[in-house]
Amino acid sequence: MDRLTIIKVGGKVIEDSTPLNTLLDQFVRISGNKILIHGGGKTATEVAAKLGIETQMVNGRRITSQSMLEVVTMVYAGLVNKQIVAKLQARGCNALGLTGADMNIISARKRPVNEIDYGFVGDVSNVNSRELRFLLNENVVPVVAPLTHDGNGQILNTNADTIAAELAAELSSYFNVYLFYCFEKKGVLLNPDDENSVLHELSYTDFQNYQNEDIIKAGMIPKLENGFRAKKQGEKEVMITNTENFLAGRGTRLA
Amino acid sequence: MDRLTIIKVGGKVIEDSTPLNTLLDQFVRISGNKILIHGGGKTATEVAAKLGIETQMVNGRRITSQSMLEVVTMVYAGLVNKQIVAKLQARGCNALGLTGADMNIISARKRPVNEIDYGFVGDVSNVNSRELRFLLNENVVPVVAPLTHDGNGQILNTNADTIAAELAAELSSYFNVYLFYCFEKKGVLLNPDDENSVLHELSYTDFQNYQNEDIIKAGMIPKLENGFRAKKQGEKEVMITNTENFLAGRGTRLA
Repeated sequence: MDRLTIIKVGGKVIEDSTPLNTLLDQFVRISGNKILIHGGGKTATEVAAKLGIETQMVNGRRITSQSMLEVVTMVYAGLVNKQIVAKLQARGCNALGLTGADMNIISARKRPVNEIDYGFVGDVSNVNSRELRFLLNENVVPVVAPLTHDGNGQILNTNADTIAAELAAELSSYFNVYLFYCFEKKGVLLNPDDENSVLHELSYTDFQNYQNEDIIKAGMIPKLENGFRAKKQGEKEVMITNTENFLAGRGTRLA
Repeated sequence: MDRLTIIKVGGKVIEDSTPLNTLLDQFVRISGNKILIHGGGKTATEVAAKLGIETQMVNGRRITSQSMLEVVTMVYAGLVNKQIVAKLQARGCNALGLTGADMNIISARKRPVNEIDYGFVGDVSNVNSRELRFLLNENVVPVVAPLTHDGNGQILNTNADTIAAELAAELSSYFNVYLFYCFEKKGVLLNPDDENSVLHELSYTDFQNYQNEDIIKAGMIPKLENGFRAKKQGEKEVMITNTENFLAGRGTRLA
């Protein structure tokens, strides 16, 4: 099987031009099939604030009202996605910006309201690997914004880490998938204040122990849950790393 | 040659859900290859105002500062484009939202500063018919936002009527192209207050005479200039019409 590299970038990486340019310089050097998935939450929060819309987060997830959905559609699919696409094209990489609605790449179900009403948030129900393979086969590089649709005309806000894991899982039947979660740290840190405390390898058992000991916490937990789920579903390699090191294979490798 | 229908929609058509739904219901009934090009200026002006950014227009064209470019990128490529794509997917039409940067579909040059500095406005320099034909051949329906790129990473704001004419001209070597400019009127009106004063056919000479007599004016002039240019470059048919009538071939046919 051919190799497919899937890179998720988020956090400070994409919302500041220096690390973004570093990432894109590295990204274009990856040979073979590749997909980039990005976030954009910080910009969405800023644009929402300027428009007088308050951001509410629960467990690191954005409550998505109708007006917040309009903001994330503008910021993720418009501002962030097209800036990345234009920058990749400038580097000779044939990027194509996509949401889940485009070519029906990713459909989702609106999250049921239990204790919390997340609003227009979608949980992935289907990844259309046929259309993705059609694009990859033409050397097109999909750049995916964290938005899906319900098939009835409704756009839904969907976590970018989850989208990366779902794409990786679905495409692992056709490719040897290498999945990288790139963020501002060198990997999973034992001590968040010490960049040299990177765990080079992490098993699921260790992950659970570190959680119990409160060493791994907050935003790292859903990221790692997604990573381990992807790993279990057949990925060759899942890594948590940063923009400078991912090409060299340095960071935290999930075992 | 196969038929290709290119529809430009703008104005009140796309920024109000009732005429937009009417248009999309009609659009999905068009058989064969098709491309939809949309505007979004009204929404861009509203969003800009909410963000405290003033809209400046010269001869019906938007002066595009850095902050206005961010607004139109959010509104055209994000909000408007993805709502149309999701609505078309709900109607069983395999829509794909594109700016000129995506798959390098349309490149442009930043307009030189003469008397007026339009800012980040682009004049089309190249249409990538190869990639468009690759998509059309797979029954993908491109939905094009009025944004291009300069190939060096810069997004540029580009008039949607012009993009429609440029796509039509470039693709007329491969398809019998039918180009429709859909807006809120039934066609070119001799009397703007009388919807029954539609001109059923308009030649370039008549167009010039009507301009001299001040009967055709303002926003209709660039639209018709684009239409006549496209017609001259080999389109089978160019029509100015509205969302209810375009499928029936009613409106103003350029002769």
